[in-house]
Amino acid sequence: MVGMPVVDVPETPVAAAAPRVPVPQARPFLHILSAHLKETFFPDDPFRAVAREDGHGRRAVAALRYLFPCLEWLPCYTLRALRSDLIAGVTVASLAVPQGISYAKLADLPPIMGLYSSFVPALVYAVMGSSRDLAVGTTAVGSLLFPALLGKEAPPAENPELYMHLAFTATFFAGVFQAGLGILRLGFVVDFLSQAAIVGFMGGAATVVCLQQLKGLLGLQHFTRATDVVAVMRAVFSQTHHWRWESLVLGCCCLIFLLMTRFFSKRRPKFFWVSAAAPLASLIVGSVLVYLIHGQNHGIEVIGNLKKGVNPSSAKSLILSPPHMMVALKTGIITGLIGLAEGIAVGRSFAMSKNYHVHNNKEMVAFGLANIVGSCTSCYLTTGPFSRSAVNVNAGCKTAMSNAVMAVAVAVTLLFLTPLFHYTPLVVLSAIIISAMLGVFDFPAAVRLWKVDKLDFCACLGAYLGVVLDNIGIGLSIAVGISVVRILLFVARPRTTALGKMPNSTMYRRMDQYAMAESVPGVLVLQVDAPIFFANASYLRERISRWINEEEERIKATGEQSLQCVVLDMGAVAGIDTSGTKLIEDLSKSLHMKNIQIALANPGSEVMKKLDMSKVLMRIDDEWIFQKVGDACDYALLNLFPLLLYSRIKWLIKEILKKSG
Amino acid sequence: MVGMPVVDVPETPVAAAAPRVPVPQARPFLHILSAHLKETFFPDDPFRAVAREDGHGRRAVAALRYLFPCLEWLPCYTLRALRSDLIAGVTVASLAVPQGISYAKLADLPPIMGLYSSFVPALVYAVMGSSRDLAVGTTAVGSLLFPALLGKEAPPAENPELYMHLAFTATFFAGVFQAGLGILRLGFVVDFLSQAAIVGFMGGAATVVCLQQLKGLLGLQHFTRATDVVAVMRAVFSQTHHWRWESLVLGCCCLIFLLMTRFFSKRRPKFFWVSAAAPLASLIVGSVLVYLIHGQNHGIEVIGNLKKGVNPSSAKSLILSPPHMMVALKTGIITGLIGLAEGIAVGRSFAMSKNYHVHNNKEMVAFGLANIVGSCTSCYLTTGPFSRSAVNVNAGCKTAMSNAVMAVAVAVTLLFLTPLFHYTPLVVLSAIIISAMLGVFDFPAAVRLWKVDKLDFCACLGAYLGVVLDNIGIGLSIAVGISVVRILLFVARPRTTALGKMPNSTMYRRMDQYAMAESVPGVLVLQVDAPIFFANASYLRERISRWINEEEERIKATGEQSLQCVVLDMGAVAGIDTSGTKLIEDLSKSLHMKNIQIALANPGSEVMKKLDMSKVLMRIDDEWIFQKVGDACDYALLNLFPLLLYSRIKWLIKEILKKSG
Repeated sequence: MVGMPVVDVPETPVAAAAPRVPVPQARPFLHILSAHLKETFFPDDPFRAVAREDGHGRRAVAALRYLFPCLEWLPCYTLRALRSDLIAGVTVASLAVPQGISYAKLADLPPIMGLYSSFVPALVYAVMGSSRDLAVGTTAVGSLLFPALLGKEAPPAENPELYMHLAFTATFFAGVFQAGLGILRLGFVVDFLSQAAIVGFMGGAATVVCLQQLKGLLGLQHFTRATDVVAVMRAVFSQTHHWRWESLVLGCCCLIFLLMTRFFSKRRPKFFWVSAAAPLASLIVGSVLVYLIHGQNHGIEVIGNLKKGVNPSSAKSLILSPPHMMVALKTGIITGLIGLAEGIAVGRSFAMSKNYHVHNNKEMVAFGLANIVGSCTSCYLTTGPFSRSAVNVNAGCKTAMSNAVMAVAVAVTLLFLTPLFHYTPLVVLSAIIISAMLGVFDFPAAVRLWKVDKLDFCACLGAYLGVVLDNIGIGLSIAVGISVVRILLFVARPRTTALGKMPNSTMYRRMDQYAMAESVPGVLVLQVDAPIFFANASYLRERISRWINEEEERIKATGEQSLQCVVLDMGAVAGIDTSGTKLIEDLSKSLHMKNIQIALANPGSEVMKKLDMSKVLMRIDDEWIFQKVGDACDYALLNLFPLLLYSRIKWLIKEILKKSG
Repeated sequence: MVGMPVVDVPETPVAAAAPRVPVPQARPFLHILSAHLKETFFPDDPFRAVAREDGHGRRAVAALRYLFPCLEWLPCYTLRALRSDLIAGVTVASLAVPQGISYAKLADLPPIMGLYSSFVPALVYAVMGSSRDLAVGTTAVGSLLFPALLGKEAPPAENPELYMHLAFTATFFAGVFQAGLGILRLGFVVDFLSQAAIVGFMGGAATVVCLQQLKGLLGLQHFTRATDVVAVMRAVFSQTHHWRWESLVLGCCCLIFLLMTRFFSKRRPKFFWVSAAAPLASLIVGSVLVYLIHGQNHGIEVIGNLKKGVNPSSAKSLILSPPHMMVALKTGIITGLIGLAEGIAVGRSFAMSKNYHVHNNKEMVAFGLANIVGSCTSCYLTTGPFSRSAVNVNAGCKTAMSNAVMAVAVAVTLLFLTPLFHYTPLVVLSAIIISAMLGVFDFPAAVRLWKVDKLDFCACLGAYLGVVLDNIGIGLSIAVGISVVRILLFVARPRTTALGKMPNSTMYRRMDQYAMAESVPGVLVLQVDAPIFFANASYLRERISRWINEEEERIKATGEQSLQCVVLDMGAVAGIDTSGTKLIEDLSKSLHMKNIQIALANPGSEVMKKLDMSKVLMRIDDEWIFQKVGDACDYALLNLFPLLLYSRIKWLIKEILKKSG
């Protein structure tokens, strides 16, 4: 018997005592379901604040406070905060008036509707909104979408009445959709639009908006209805003889003035009000100029009469029956979603910088109610646009009261000052829109995408080109399509990596990341980095069997210790479904046929439960499920290689020599 | 100074020397892209076999062998294998003839097409298919889908010519779609149909198919075109006076005979041929009986004349222009997808049990070509049905040659034996279909779903009820919808868990799983179990801030050590995009404002690269990124609490006391 390696290796205390993973106790189905539902729909746990209170009265107050965020800050509202909000509100109003008129023109709606839209919805948001920084109003992209989506059903030039009613209806549906999403706690649908796609889409929309302004800048009478860059360029350069230099000069002067103030305010943040007040200033100067030189007779178009008075009711204009309803419904859902995406992103980013929290679902309800009420009071789609909110923040707003102040200021304008806008030249509005749109282009974001993630950049570019070269709908479809495909790829192709032992440690780490990690002879350690479920189970099956085949080929080539055990590190497997348990079962069966042992390391309680219930645990045997990858490898080495202990000793000696050398 | 705790704690060697995580070297974009594309589209690495060979000639042979799997087994095909395949092929043919006729009746197509469809496509598959066990033929669900989807455009009773042409066209498009998916390596789209939804859908379709057979069993002349259970029951019981007892008796006898043989063969797997030959036997007996008693005069409908001869060409019948093309295209895509899902699942499960590998994409090309060629030779949609393949396996098939044998046997039937089917009663075909459908109901799978995963069961039930109570299209939509929603929920709501230190170990494990895991005072360790990207970044933001808030509230309530450090265990974060890096950046900013340190443990190379490129790494500081959660906690304890060392000592004493007690 001399010379033969010892067969029965006494188990070392470490390996024998290595604690195994317990199967968690079964919980009632309803418990699991309610925990699931809570995590899915109420991740922010809105009931905690209510449940914490004692007594019915205090609970009711807490619930009201949850529903109406204004009740949170109103009781402790100070004169000082009011002063800040007053300043901020008036500053924003000075931007809101010219921007509102401009965007309404962009939406092919009566200019006065831009002012209406800054009044009622802002009041609603002041009561319902949970952001302190958002200033409510119309946006350029939303305004552009209305004629693009509704124009075919009711051309604004031919049937302005029907077009306006459809716009109200679409706003109403957008509000219902937004509020519905919020009430059903489905705020997360907005998250499925990837940031990259939004950057590209917004940039494309801004380009299109700027291109449309060439009509106003050049004083053209006829223009194309298409929005793509080719059609617009053809329309512009096919009628060079119709260009009006008066209009162009005034527009360019305005634009240069606006851009200079923007640049100045950016360099000196203290003088934020310069750029905030610049649109109003150019509006006033432009109007006075036109009045003095009778510009309307020299090819400079003016707004004309604006009706005095605050918002008239439009509840009776809503079209709630087919055939026109369907297009309004579609427009409402699309614009509502785009509006939410912008409003929530803006609110969230300001909240993050001031370190408070904005609740997606509450915001959705607030935007939705603002649009529902707005659609009945002659407003069209509003959300929280970036430019206006940034001015609001810079002006030092403290609470949503600044929205109320802005609303009052706009109402005063509506009641008394509308005649002043009679001579306002359209070209100034075009300049204001272009200057605002240049802020929507997020060049730094695109550069960051290029640097950090080329695929994200491609998504961004795809959405941009879709909008610019074809139309807004195509661009939006591309953006959504790219986002969904990215999600599905993330899901369908999870990462698997081989782990190796780190020197002087019991850690096992990815061998492609750490060059010093060494594989254990005869043991293949694989880490799976995703929940295993139907969408990736068959990929994982192929990928894992490829890992094993490659390892066996490598071993055959090098003549090393043959493969005895495959350890799956399940630490990162958050969940598993029936396809996943089937995968583990099939894997253990096919490994068994090859005389290879399967071991699991660090499975979570969810995974243990599912494996237990599907009887896969019985197949693998409790003995081969470990808390740690290291334990699994040690146990495999001790139990599977008694006859081949020799190679193990050789390996150990090599390790010792390496350490000492 | 006496009595004050020591401020400057000397760093222990362990914590100071704890190795940090290296930032991987930048690789060229094209390298990354090609690796990505390979992992996405070629996870099975099909070029390896070709690249391994030396010389152009041998590589060409390897490539041909890859394209035509029959070249793999033909060169070493033995007489013994041929004998097995002969037996299997003839056995399957004896099932294929009656099943083919029955399913063609179900599809409202001429019965002879069922035989055609077992001839040409089976030959194509024998050359192209990579499964050794699959037997090709038509399926009940596919056959049922044709009248359901094409019936509105061309009612088979009123315009059988157009209906047949549409069926060929739909088969053609199904083939193009399947082969296209395979060639574009998009085989994984099939994986997005969850197993649970498929079980439910198939069960529902089987129910509907069985209900439809009541017409044949009861010998009814008029029947509803609707497939839902309510309409069928109403149709059946509204004309009880039209029921024919002759038909019912013959059908029931047949059905009982078939079920008994099935039961017998299941109990004694050796006598598998009894149940395989039973349909043919009942067909023969039924035909002879009807011929003898002139059953066609007593309310027993018979097939009638079948044309002699093999498949005529139908290439000229394909309708490749609107308006009829669109419905055929839609039908083709839907049935093609369903066919793939069944064929691939069946092939894969037999391959798994015999421990060889079936390639999804190759199979798709094989099915696709079989359908394209079939559509030009008077066949309709074929795939690899379960019942036929199971008989094939039981009969001992060795290679795809058994398909060729079956094809020849069917061709012989077509050439010489069709007159024998003149007197075959339809009611026998109904009995054959019902008996086959009872094998499609996967009750054990449904029970397993209920036990293992209640949500999966709900998905299964939803798809089932959709098919049974409304129609097949609705059921399919429900199945797909449920699958997609499940994927999105998996993605949008990743798990985060708090980790605690395991006693007598340096491991940190989930505290909800291991009761003995203990939190470290002042440090919150969170594990994120998913790639962080746009679809879950905002949820994770809310969830992590809730973890921190809850921890702070808990600390306030218990008066423990205040929170000093949040450690994120990134070991399971497989990837990160720009939204994800933004999340880490925002988190570190907002924690910084609260004077809490953020630390990352065990980030992967992908994550490190992205964090480095997006400059987030600079913000967090290399010092706070660790290979191990334990290192991070130790380092935080040593560096953040010099003034509060006291509590640490108290905690240590408690631990020591616990160990000794």
